[in-house]
Amino acid sequence: MKIVVQYLLILFIVVACKESTVTKQDTASIVVKNTEPLPSWKEGETKDAIINYVNTVTTEGVDFIPVSERVAVFDNDGTLWSEQPAYFQLFFAIDRIKALAQENPEWKNTQPFQAVLENDMKKLMTYGEHGLIEIVMASHAGNTVDEFEQIVKDWLATAKHPRFDRPYTDLVYQPMLELLNYLKENDFKTYIVSGGGIEFMRPWVESVYGISKDHVIGSSIKTEFVITDGITQIKRSAALDFINDKAGKPVGINRFIGRKPVFAAGNSDGDLQMLQWTDSNTYPSFQIYIHHTDAGREWAYDRESSIGRLDKGLTESNEKGWTVANMKTDWNVVYPFELNK
Amino acid sequence: MKIVVQYLLILFIVVACKESTVTKQDTASIVVKNTEPLPSWKEGETKDAIINYVNTVTTEGVDFIPVSERVAVFDNDGTLWSEQPAYFQLFFAIDRIKALAQENPEWKNTQPFQAVLENDMKKLMTYGEHGLIEIVMASHAGNTVDEFEQIVKDWLATAKHPRFDRPYTDLVYQPMLELLNYLKENDFKTYIVSGGGIEFMRPWVESVYGISKDHVIGSSIKTEFVITDGITQIKRSAALDFINDKAGKPVGINRFIGRKPVFAAGNSDGDLQMLQWTDSNTYPSFQIYIHHTDAGREWAYDRESSIGRLDKGLTESNEKGWTVANMKTDWNVVYPFELNK
Repeated sequence: MKIVVQYLLILFIVVACKESTVTKQDTASIVVKNTEPLPSWKEGETKDAIINYVNTVTTEGVDFIPVSERVAVFDNDGTLWSEQPAYFQLFFAIDRIKALAQENPEWKNTQPFQAVLENDMKKLMTYGEHGLIEIVMASHAGNTVDEFEQIVKDWLATAKHPRFDRPYTDLVYQPMLELLNYLKENDFKTYIVSGGGIEFMRPWVESVYGISKDHVIGSSIKTEFVITDGITQIKRSAALDFINDKAGKPVGINRFIGRKPVFAAGNSDGDLQMLQWTDSNTYPSFQIYIHHTDAGREWAYDRESSIGRLDKGLTESNEKGWTVANMKTDWNVVYPFELNK
Repeated sequence: MKIVVQYLLILFIVVACKESTVTKQDTASIVVKNTEPLPSWKEGETKDAIINYVNTVTTEGVDFIPVSERVAVFDNDGTLWSEQPAYFQLFFAIDRIKALAQENPEWKNTQPFQAVLENDMKKLMTYGEHGLIEIVMASHAGNTVDEFEQIVKDWLATAKHPRFDRPYTDLVYQPMLELLNYLKENDFKTYIVSGGGIEFMRPWVESVYGISKDHVIGSSIKTEFVITDGITQIKRSAALDFINDKAGKPVGINRFIGRKPVFAAGNSDGDLQMLQWTDSNTYPSFQIYIHHTDAGREWAYDRESSIGRLDKGLTESNEKGWTVANMKTDWNVVYPFELNK
């Protein structure tokens, strides 16, 4: 239930960050050459490491990896899109509680919902884990999978990120989109392996990342198949099914993919076990941590952060020689919208 | 836990069938034309229905289905390979208990293992569901996922089917292999959705069916990621995780694939909910039941069978106009080895 504790901390931070404003950037316009791979990655050790790895394992020789074994896994929050000032799914949950308030008039006087409706995060925190579970369940359950997909799509179409005042899906990382593409061009199968909700991600990953719905692994709540008046539905119930985080990530990968990855990308200690497991592949493998070092264009945080803490992972990367991408110095651009400036 | 009750019945039947012998066939050699789709399907209504459906939904027009939505799901036992005189996975479990007997000398005097070791199925039945669960768990758990994969491969390489005296993987259906291929050629994604164990199927589905491991959905036991002396492993524990049967099939499909299929093939009432859910697709959909009508080449069973019972499904097929393939009259050959006669 540590994920719930994280949510709790995040809620608090949301309040603190509501006042933050966009830091203006004087980013020079970037010329993207489509003929070169990874144009948004600066020339240097990190880019070289990625390209050398892919060249090596796709060239006949002792390090060659057959196409069927080219499995690449990517964390989502903080690895493919931003996760500050809180996991974007939490903004969704809060907005959802507010949207459902009219249908649930008793929430006005029922905690912990009252605290959400009154933006009283301090009060909310006093309800602890149990209160958070109630909120997440109430905001994510009680509908069918079709309905929930539409709710997520509608939210993404209207909700704006508090700092950038842009749709959340604008805050994906251009260099990582290029990395996903580069791997696909080299016959890797790419998967998202996230602690976030599997059904929160599926509605948009195909259009945003070009990753198929069935290549998304995430946390889930229990669902049930029901037939009512001849209509078949899958209903979402208010019970946790699986937390796809930390040691749950290798378990989720094994369950959904059935083979060990050769390439893993993450940004926090929650991804450590996924990287460790990938590192144990008998084929040559590649591990990369995205290190958030860019407070100007994105955010800077690592060992002390309550969201996306990268502490043990950073230490282990140094010990094992994993690649650490320095967002500030390795990326020409962070977000796709910078390309159009 | 109805699946356990089925196992119980099956165990009993195994004994009864151990004495059965191969029914000799005078099957004429079949000329397979690769230029025509579905060569092992006889000309007629069933073959026409399949081909008409595929032609219609892959041709621009009101019934056209975009490639991303072309999801086809197949049951395994009794739909892609035989399931008589018992689910083949049960033969595996029994052989596995016998193979593990030396490491577990106490089993000689501990029920229900003693009953398995003494081939005393009558005795075994007296231990009911609980006894069966013990046997399935003991035979499938306690190792790592890598070890289990190798165990399954080794078993398949040596075990022989009691009636045909051939490897179990010889008993796949040639017409269904052609159907899988035909759908793939028309840009359908094909998945196995089975009540059988997901990790029992994955070791061989790629070479036998040409279906990727990550396109297999099945029942599972719980697994755990552990690091021991720096070695990462996923261990299989003796606890049920998910039963992918009946109403569990749409749930499993939604969890793994994330979209509703347009094509579903099954052979028993355990597949009914999967066909019902597929039938509710807003795109034109196709449902097919394989009807076991061929006691000579395979087996004949339906409404009264304890294994692969097709009762409600047959009734609903008639009501809804689903396709029912008559194995005896719709298939030129059943097994691939008949082609080489």
